[in-house]
Amino acid sequence: MAKKNAFYAQSGGVTAVINASACGVIEACRQHRDKIGVLYAGQNGIIGALQENLIDTGKESDAAVSALRHTPGGAFGSCRYKMQDLSESTAEYERLIQVFKAHNIGYFFYNGGGDSADTCLKVSQISEKMGYPIQAIHIPKTIDNDLPLTDYSPDFGSVAKYVAVSTAEAGLDIASMAASSTKVFILEVMGRHAGWIAAAGGLAAQAVGDAPHIILFPEMPFVREQFIEKVKNTVGEKGYCVVVASEGVSYADGGLISGSLSKDAFGHQQLGGVAPALASMVKHSLGYKYHYAVADYLQRAARHLASKTDVEQAYAVGYAAVEKALQGKNAIMVTIQRGSGKTYSWSLGEAPLHRIANREKKMPRSFISRDGYGITQKARDYLSPLIAGEDYPPYRRGLPHYPALKNIRVAKRCDLS
Amino acid sequence: MAKKNAFYAQSGGVTAVINASACGVIEACRQHRDKIGVLYAGQNGIIGALQENLIDTGKESDAAVSALRHTPGGAFGSCRYKMQDLSESTAEYERLIQVFKAHNIGYFFYNGGGDSADTCLKVSQISEKMGYPIQAIHIPKTIDNDLPLTDYSPDFGSVAKYVAVSTAEAGLDIASMAASSTKVFILEVMGRHAGWIAAAGGLAAQAVGDAPHIILFPEMPFVREQFIEKVKNTVGEKGYCVVVASEGVSYADGGLISGSLSKDAFGHQQLGGVAPALASMVKHSLGYKYHYAVADYLQRAARHLASKTDVEQAYAVGYAAVEKALQGKNAIMVTIQRGSGKTYSWSLGEAPLHRIANREKKMPRSFISRDGYGITQKARDYLSPLIAGEDYPPYRRGLPHYPALKNIRVAKRCDLS
Repeated sequence: MAKKNAFYAQSGGVTAVINASACGVIEACRQHRDKIGVLYAGQNGIIGALQENLIDTGKESDAAVSALRHTPGGAFGSCRYKMQDLSESTAEYERLIQVFKAHNIGYFFYNGGGDSADTCLKVSQISEKMGYPIQAIHIPKTIDNDLPLTDYSPDFGSVAKYVAVSTAEAGLDIASMAASSTKVFILEVMGRHAGWIAAAGGLAAQAVGDAPHIILFPEMPFVREQFIEKVKNTVGEKGYCVVVASEGVSYADGGLISGSLSKDAFGHQQLGGVAPALASMVKHSLGYKYHYAVADYLQRAARHLASKTDVEQAYAVGYAAVEKALQGKNAIMVTIQRGSGKTYSWSLGEAPLHRIANREKKMPRSFISRDGYGITQKARDYLSPLIAGEDYPPYRRGLPHYPALKNIRVAKRCDLS
Repeated sequence: MAKKNAFYAQSGGVTAVINASACGVIEACRQHRDKIGVLYAGQNGIIGALQENLIDTGKESDAAVSALRHTPGGAFGSCRYKMQDLSESTAEYERLIQVFKAHNIGYFFYNGGGDSADTCLKVSQISEKMGYPIQAIHIPKTIDNDLPLTDYSPDFGSVAKYVAVSTAEAGLDIASMAASSTKVFILEVMGRHAGWIAAAGGLAAQAVGDAPHIILFPEMPFVREQFIEKVKNTVGEKGYCVVVASEGVSYADGGLISGSLSKDAFGHQQLGGVAPALASMVKHSLGYKYHYAVADYLQRAARHLASKTDVEQAYAVGYAAVEKALQGKNAIMVTIQRGSGKTYSWSLGEAPLHRIANREKKMPRSFISRDGYGITQKARDYLSPLIAGEDYPPYRRGLPHYPALKNIRVAKRCDLS
């Protein structure tokens, strides 16, 4: 069989270490030049394939590729794009495969979360039906840590580390100020449906009574009176209260606590803002001085504080995706398996995509403390190894050196009118 | 003269490196055990002196003191407390000096911003009048960088580094997403009256067109239509727009753009929130998808990303304060002087407190670009050395090791009824 080319794309929200996965894919392809031809990357994710905007990664120097390992964001661009539903039309998938065929692409590496696992599976299935079979391998990436059948999702560990460290640092700040000033600090973190990131804030507490004192999970219905009571008791006891709140916190009826309460001067709903909403409740009910932070993109882009474990695993799943493709694997996701020993260890595995796509792994109830506002030892044991180790980027003049790629596009071959 | 004791207190908002100044003070006192007796620290700042809650720093091990250099927050507690106005009453100052006298304190080291420089001066003046002269030395600390007569204020450099790095990282994030998703990212940073911190965000741009594209300074009146136009043009040109906004941004009439626009469901003014206010304007006028982050305490507590230059200088001003006291200096602030050479160099100096107290150094207009939305090369040359170098704390199990002091209080000697 003639040497096939390969395609790689990044999907969904980008992160501190998704480029480490890209680095793994590219370096593995370069190691196997005898078996894999050109590795193309999709400009702006899968949209790049649909529009035939393909980047020739072969034009990048080894040094530039190596630097991806320490550069946050999506080096080729990512996208939030929902492919057409197959029940309505297979046209988009057919177009994808047309482009892949035109560029002799036989390997499809897709780096993302649950939605992209689904896309990956369909590329494999439809290419088969179309008589141009493509091996589709999914590379897990989601800060939400909600992919099933893998011990965890790479990219989560670095967000977890950022949130844990930031909570610890802000906790020391408010502890110093509380006697005469701020009493409540609220940190809003990502996680619409699963509370993994908020849970990571709990790692900041290394002794009983340490911040954070309250964690609000999307898995636990928010009860305003109970929350206010807990804040009041914590301030009474400790002098201050640190809250880590998931952006997805909602009432029992599913209504988000953010967004629904306030309108701006033009009558528009003020979107986003669990932290300001909680702060407003605290001020209203208890009168305490508060501060709040909204970590937003900072948490997922913070390559300066990446977890070494996470960087290594993000790289490894990318590298392994290529190796598995060369072993003839198809329609699988590379997974991370945790060793059963007392000391943390991990190895790579795989899982069939039909068991991954469109399933969401929430926090087990056993990870959340009985009162619903903290994490258990079990959660701690699970989370702690994922934030272990530091992996600092190189700095120049006080700033991390995050070089950009050349991103040279190849000539189009398809008439996509 | 018999050996006098010393007193040290932290004032105002705590920072990533204020404890490095404390470390400098304590280590210098330990170096001069022949001349200085016990070094007491005020529990929760000057309130500790007023209430005679004094911590004996002599009870801390050398290792614990050394660890202060890499621990954020205020190790002894700080406070926001306004001393009584002298025109109304000298009672509080007299009480301070009564406590100092009771504990044979002859040196007063006060670590803070403009307000505490004023307090420091008054302690010197009133103690003199009361016949118990105390040498009062002010140790500069303010993330706002608004102290006069010093090249810059220690503690600003680390916030500047955090904001510059975070802006660069979030800029890479949105650049990756903009083709199909978020178009505008807004980072809200501290700085009510002076735009130094917002300006530091400008260091993230290392080439023309890099993020941030818009910086909003408190020094420049906010014009909504102009801002919206600039966002629109930037998105048109670059595909996305990164904004760094100082919390103190206000209209020409002095009205803050935050807080004034929105009310929550209970009719309470939604406090804080330049970023959400700007995001709402963008959404309303342009319809772009946005994200925003509010750095709040994270920026000033981020010891994990401290500037090495800043840590060294914070330590140095603390150490020098003790040495200057031993040289007989009084009513001065330790300053940092920049060398005139091309390569950055610095040395320590001093300035009389009567020229420091209650004066605020704003950003020179020459540091702000002509259109008011960026920084000039002059600003860049000034700011860049302040964020240079990294000084990582030690880590254990993925988290920085930030140990707490024992903070043992000494017995009270005054009847402060």
